[in-house]
Amino acid sequence: MTKKPAQFYHAGCPVCMEAEQKVAHALDTNRFDLEIIHLGEQKNRIGEAESKGVKSVPALVLDGVPFHINYGAGIEDLKK
Amino acid sequence: MTKKPAQFYHAGCPVCMEAEQKVAHALDTNRFDLEIIHLGEQKNRIGEAESKGVKSVPALVLDGVPFHINYGAGIEDLKK
Repeated sequence: MTKKPAQFYHAGCPVCMEAEQKVAHALDTNRFDLEIIHLGEQKNRIGEAESKGVKSVPALVLDGVPFHINYGAGIEDLKK
Repeated sequence: MTKKPAQFYHAGCPVCMEAEQKVAHALDTNRFDLEIIHLGEQKNRIGEAESKGVKSVPALVLDGVPFHINYGAGIEDLKK
């Protein structure tokens, strides 16, 4: 079975870390290829996140659909 | 391995349905016992959801920690 792509975008904030540890790592890795992206350290990927509909972090994009999990920071704040 | 409890609380709204189909069903069922609760139909469980920290739906509670996924409705609205 082909795995579906999953991206977890975060910015290293406490809310982000908890979501990463609990939600992102709860995914079934037999069905999803999970990539973790720290937008604070990889600012060149902010545009990619925005193009997937990510408006705040932490956010989990499953098969192209964005889900905002709690609220750590707005994506505009990460551009500063 | 003992499975950890996971509750997905929703209210049947479109935002809820998408989160259920994509996020809740992406969990690794070898590690989590997932229960889906429709708070619109099971209003007697709203108190339980609140006690776990759920403030809006859809919400996923993993091992007791609440994560609000996007925003469908506030839990106060479900009491009406």
